[in-house]
Amino acid sequence: MINPNYYCVIMAGGIGARFWPMSNSTTPKQFIDILGEGQTLIQKTFNRFTKICPKENIYIVTSKAYKEITHKQLPDISEDQIILEPYRRNTAPCIAYANYKIKTKNPNAAVVVAPSDHVILKEDIFTNVIEEGLKAVSENPWLMTIGIRPSSPNTGYGYIQYNEDKSYEKNRSIYDVKTFTEKPELEMAKSFLESGDFLWNAGIFMWSMKEIQKAFETFLPDVDALFKQGEGLYNTDSEPEFIDKIYQVCRNISVDYGIMEKAQNVHVYAANFGWSDLGTWGSLYEIRKKDTNQNVVSGNRVKVYDSNKCIINMPKNKIVVVQGLEDYIVVENDDMLLICKKSDEQQIRQYVAEVQVDFGNKFI
Amino acid sequence: MINPNYYCVIMAGGIGARFWPMSNSTTPKQFIDILGEGQTLIQKTFNRFTKICPKENIYIVTSKAYKEITHKQLPDISEDQIILEPYRRNTAPCIAYANYKIKTKNPNAAVVVAPSDHVILKEDIFTNVIEEGLKAVSENPWLMTIGIRPSSPNTGYGYIQYNEDKSYEKNRSIYDVKTFTEKPELEMAKSFLESGDFLWNAGIFMWSMKEIQKAFETFLPDVDALFKQGEGLYNTDSEPEFIDKIYQVCRNISVDYGIMEKAQNVHVYAANFGWSDLGTWGSLYEIRKKDTNQNVVSGNRVKVYDSNKCIINMPKNKIVVVQGLEDYIVVENDDMLLICKKSDEQQIRQYVAEVQVDFGNKFI
Repeated sequence: MINPNYYCVIMAGGIGARFWPMSNSTTPKQFIDILGEGQTLIQKTFNRFTKICPKENIYIVTSKAYKEITHKQLPDISEDQIILEPYRRNTAPCIAYANYKIKTKNPNAAVVVAPSDHVILKEDIFTNVIEEGLKAVSENPWLMTIGIRPSSPNTGYGYIQYNEDKSYEKNRSIYDVKTFTEKPELEMAKSFLESGDFLWNAGIFMWSMKEIQKAFETFLPDVDALFKQGEGLYNTDSEPEFIDKIYQVCRNISVDYGIMEKAQNVHVYAANFGWSDLGTWGSLYEIRKKDTNQNVVSGNRVKVYDSNKCIINMPKNKIVVVQGLEDYIVVENDDMLLICKKSDEQQIRQYVAEVQVDFGNKFI
Repeated sequence: MINPNYYCVIMAGGIGARFWPMSNSTTPKQFIDILGEGQTLIQKTFNRFTKICPKENIYIVTSKAYKEITHKQLPDISEDQIILEPYRRNTAPCIAYANYKIKTKNPNAAVVVAPSDHVILKEDIFTNVIEEGLKAVSENPWLMTIGIRPSSPNTGYGYIQYNEDKSYEKNRSIYDVKTFTEKPELEMAKSFLESGDFLWNAGIFMWSMKEIQKAFETFLPDVDALFKQGEGLYNTDSEPEFIDKIYQVCRNISVDYGIMEKAQNVHVYAANFGWSDLGTWGSLYEIRKKDTNQNVVSGNRVKVYDSNKCIINMPKNKIVVVQGLEDYIVVENDDMLLICKKSDEQQIRQYVAEVQVDFGNKFI
């Protein structure tokens, strides 16, 4: 029995610069079948939540540029379930906007907010965690986030320290949060991993409409005030014009920094459901099946010699010979080619920026 | 004053497999502007010989498949100057065929035979060497080859040992040949280089029609007999049908192995005119201008980071980011991509063969 008060907001406005050239401004990562499984990441994300919320309660927040591709990839949802941001303003304004639209329809909503471009390998566990979490935030005045038990000292994630002694009596995987930390240096990340009471911040949130509204009023009153002006306009023809106006002046701030790191009622659900934020080519490499030389190769006409630990992603019928590479990313898409050491993949964002400056801004 | 008895035969039937994917069966290396100078290799070769022979005495021997591209790239020559081989049979039959056509017109010809796809950086010296050589073979009963003073123990070339004490009194750069040797192992090549009396075999030959005819009759009588049957048919409408018939049964043999290694009247012209056979990507790398990181980069939109000693050859407007490569070949052409260590470039021919087997034979 699906709870009619359960809502889902899928954030799909990112551009996935670190996945260039597969991901680019025309078709960002969430709209790509990057796992080669026949569904794009946003399609997989949407399908996951249809097991938890009524289909008509699932909202996609994305930018105007991706309206058509969203419709095309998710033909089951209605026009008003696609929330279009006129500018990119990070997660807090995105969530505030979705909140105002949802609470106009259902002030008793319990909402899960999730990125559109993550990978969840164990879907059944995920479904269970979200259902339990929504139940908990429906019954308790909490803001909840999901924390992933870390398997390595990854410096690409934020970390959440939880209070082991304070778990929820009805669900011992839910804990009080001590602190949020930004992406750490490697030494710090190693000590986090050893300590055992740090989790990766997966960027998946749950709360009741009432609690998140209270949090915005307390910690981001300026942002909330902007969206409050629109009461009566949400879900009407006047909404887009109003939104366009306030987004121009709204500040760019994340919900982590703006609310979660400051609120006192934050809880974390420690979970393990085969999660990856698929932030980089290396993280895709980690979850993909390897061949006998530990290579991950996409493309029907790719020949690989004397190479190992590479991720090679080529157009289906392109003839490619790769020889003598170890631990490299080799990717072509849309007639753009990237060859980069996996260990230097954090530079890709910078390379893309330079490509943009030097060769015109149509790429990212 | 250009000597009307001087003739040139340019051999242009190769497919340049080691230059894949720039070179392929549709457009082999000789038809490519591989130096990026505005002329293809065959155009440069043709232009070089126009300073030595009357334009109408320059013949191109190539395969039927390249008739059109030869006409297109060399619009100055007439149809009968393009000699079409129905099958690839190595250099001896190619030369025999050209000989019979030329001697029908001029039995007093002195002929220079040269590949179409080599690089000559010092054209004035080259012109002088060929003129001196043609003069010498007009006056002496010799078969002559050109030997390049080696600059490295290259294992990709055949070597010619010359007799230092027996040089031609009218030109001290022309010597008696002691031995021809096939491509040596590295240790052998090193000792050749140290000894000082070995030269690289450039595959450029000069002889009078009379001497080369005598040599064919002596060392390759079966090949000569086949072509002799066609006397009276050369330069007539019956020629192609006759040639098609004899090429089917003619054996595949090089002029080096079939004649030069066996004849006693072989002389070598020791020369230095900035020669390269451009046999591999590495040899192209050697002669091209390098940037500050010792890279040779073609393409307008290629960004190279943390890389050196690479040769990167990309389509003009393709967006490419290359990071973290040292001493690699990175080439794309015709939607085919090769990434290979320069030190393993001798494998490219094998890779191409495997590509051909696995993905169909339209590539080479």
